[in-house]
Amino acid sequence: MSSEAGDAAAYAARAYPAWVRAQKAYGLSDQEGQVKLNQNESPFDLPLELKREILEQVLAEPWNRYPALRDAELHAEVAAHFGVRAEQLLIGPGSNSLLGALAQCVAQPDAVVVAARPSFGLYGSATRASGSRLLEVPLGPDLRLDVAGMISAARENRAALVFAANPNNPTGTAVPTAALLELVAEAPGLVLLDEAYLEFSGLPSALGALDRHPNLIVLRTFSKAFGLAGVRCGCLMGHPEVLAPIDRLRAPFAMGPFVRHCIRAILRQPDLLRRTVEHIIQERERVLARMSCIPGVVPRPSMANFVLFEVLEHEKVYRRLHRRGITVRDVSSYDELKSSLRVTIGTPEENEAFLNALAEAVK
Amino acid sequence: MSSEAGDAAAYAARAYPAWVRAQKAYGLSDQEGQVKLNQNESPFDLPLELKREILEQVLAEPWNRYPALRDAELHAEVAAHFGVRAEQLLIGPGSNSLLGALAQCVAQPDAVVVAARPSFGLYGSATRASGSRLLEVPLGPDLRLDVAGMISAARENRAALVFAANPNNPTGTAVPTAALLELVAEAPGLVLLDEAYLEFSGLPSALGALDRHPNLIVLRTFSKAFGLAGVRCGCLMGHPEVLAPIDRLRAPFAMGPFVRHCIRAILRQPDLLRRTVEHIIQERERVLARMSCIPGVVPRPSMANFVLFEVLEHEKVYRRLHRRGITVRDVSSYDELKSSLRVTIGTPEENEAFLNALAEAVK
Repeated sequence: MSSEAGDAAAYAARAYPAWVRAQKAYGLSDQEGQVKLNQNESPFDLPLELKREILEQVLAEPWNRYPALRDAELHAEVAAHFGVRAEQLLIGPGSNSLLGALAQCVAQPDAVVVAARPSFGLYGSATRASGSRLLEVPLGPDLRLDVAGMISAARENRAALVFAANPNNPTGTAVPTAALLELVAEAPGLVLLDEAYLEFSGLPSALGALDRHPNLIVLRTFSKAFGLAGVRCGCLMGHPEVLAPIDRLRAPFAMGPFVRHCIRAILRQPDLLRRTVEHIIQERERVLARMSCIPGVVPRPSMANFVLFEVLEHEKVYRRLHRRGITVRDVSSYDELKSSLRVTIGTPEENEAFLNALAEAVK
Repeated sequence: MSSEAGDAAAYAARAYPAWVRAQKAYGLSDQEGQVKLNQNESPFDLPLELKREILEQVLAEPWNRYPALRDAELHAEVAAHFGVRAEQLLIGPGSNSLLGALAQCVAQPDAVVVAARPSFGLYGSATRASGSRLLEVPLGPDLRLDVAGMISAARENRAALVFAANPNNPTGTAVPTAALLELVAEAPGLVLLDEAYLEFSGLPSALGALDRHPNLIVLRTFSKAFGLAGVRCGCLMGHPEVLAPIDRLRAPFAMGPFVRHCIRAILRQPDLLRRTVEHIIQERERVLARMSCIPGVVPRPSMANFVLFEVLEHEKVYRRLHRRGITVRDVSSYDELKSSLRVTIGTPEENEAFLNALAEAVK
């Protein structure tokens, strides 16, 4: 290390607390192949004509002006889609940023945050980065949320916040919405219910119970079923008293005209959303059935747009898939998923390419 | 308050620490008139042809895919523009979000952050929201940064971070870059030097000294001289060891294809940037000279794209300007600026409208 780098490290060590310095980078080491099935994206871009229409509206906006502090029209339309009131809604540049703001809001050195394990990695990293204590509750033997265990952990530790994803990522498993509402009712603090993959599950949203549960926050995203991962938009819904501090804490003016017009346009295409979701669910069931027939592959039924599967030598299988241009997600860093990979449901052609390559790779 | 709202307030009180609950909303109460001179935006949108070219590139991108975790091309081009190495650069969705991430990084209950007063409001709000202690050093009698005072405050309190804007907002005053480098050399922790308005000052950037100062972080934005406030993009430059924790802490995948192509396109238009800045500086000097001739108006010389001015009854003047469709910024909430308003330099037509309305308003 050069002396200057050494100096910089010394300054960093003095300025940043230990939990910040210990924070790991968000991991995505996958080298991308041509068939990208590692980030649970929708395989379908918007129709070109719709993209052109949106961009005509973006063109007409002044790019030199800050966005409104709160875009009333956008909030009204998103709220209407989700069946909540506009004051129950926060929209942000990607649900990741909202998760981070929430974790920061509850952060203090003695705060406890409960999350399932394995689950979405950002719950843990956002919590650790904020200096709160992360308490992980293992999934049940069926890899579903151990709701009773999470209730106990939250109550015994007076958890300020519980993160619960339904369906859960990276397992694709789900529990009944009623079970999660019991968690919400029993938790002493806030519960962030992450419904990022809900559209693929057929389950009812917990949003219908928002008015009965003042400590419930529901997260939804435009990156999965809506197919807009590149647009960066997600939202939190909850009681205004609970959302206000998150809103005040985050950076203002987060989203420009591109986000605004993309979201407003997609909300006017309910048929497109419905067809996409139906198509992905059909493909998921087809892929699952085909995977079950490949000797040495144990796929897990999924309520999301991806499938978790076990193979004997997951590293070898990952490499062999990669050599054939297919990128899946290696989720084996979790002890509970030691020999598992996760594949996103793609287009029929992508899924075929994956299935054929997988059959070869496990031979 | 309904019982449900009361319940929500009780949950919020338990979940969020006092400093989070005490956080005030980012204020922008100005009701907008036709001539918008309250947010220090550039009055010039990009030429329509350039906007079309950018949107053609955005059209060709897949909107259903997450952005790269780190956009190597964008980083290389932005780094080249500012004369730093790509590893010395963090790009984010608006410099506000980067300020917030930095404040969060140094946050701990006993951490001290030093900032000037009056200065950019987000330094204080980001610090308070993170739970650190904010220590404000008043500007000197000439409303310039009291660099010696800031050095003393930082040293005596072992400040983890110092925020310093040059030129300063909302005063438009600047100090020599060398004076700030002395602050950087003397500070025990990190120094965030905010050069958001540097292009309008003619001053050399502190970026040239980055290699000599491992604790220096320089902030630049595309929202002011570059005229892209709606695009949401800013950056931090500093030593990789100092930037890495900020990068790890913030939400991943922050910026989509719209930001990427806007920034890459504007960097290929150095003449446009130069002409815009020259034009705004010329207009600023013209507006200043004209304001000085209006009895009852005391404008302050400015190194930025705005002018701070004193009037006798600032509330009445603000209202009268507003009634004529002209929105300026009321900065009188600072004790030090009790009877002051701030006006952004607009187009020649906007500036004329402002000057005429001001002459009437102070009568």
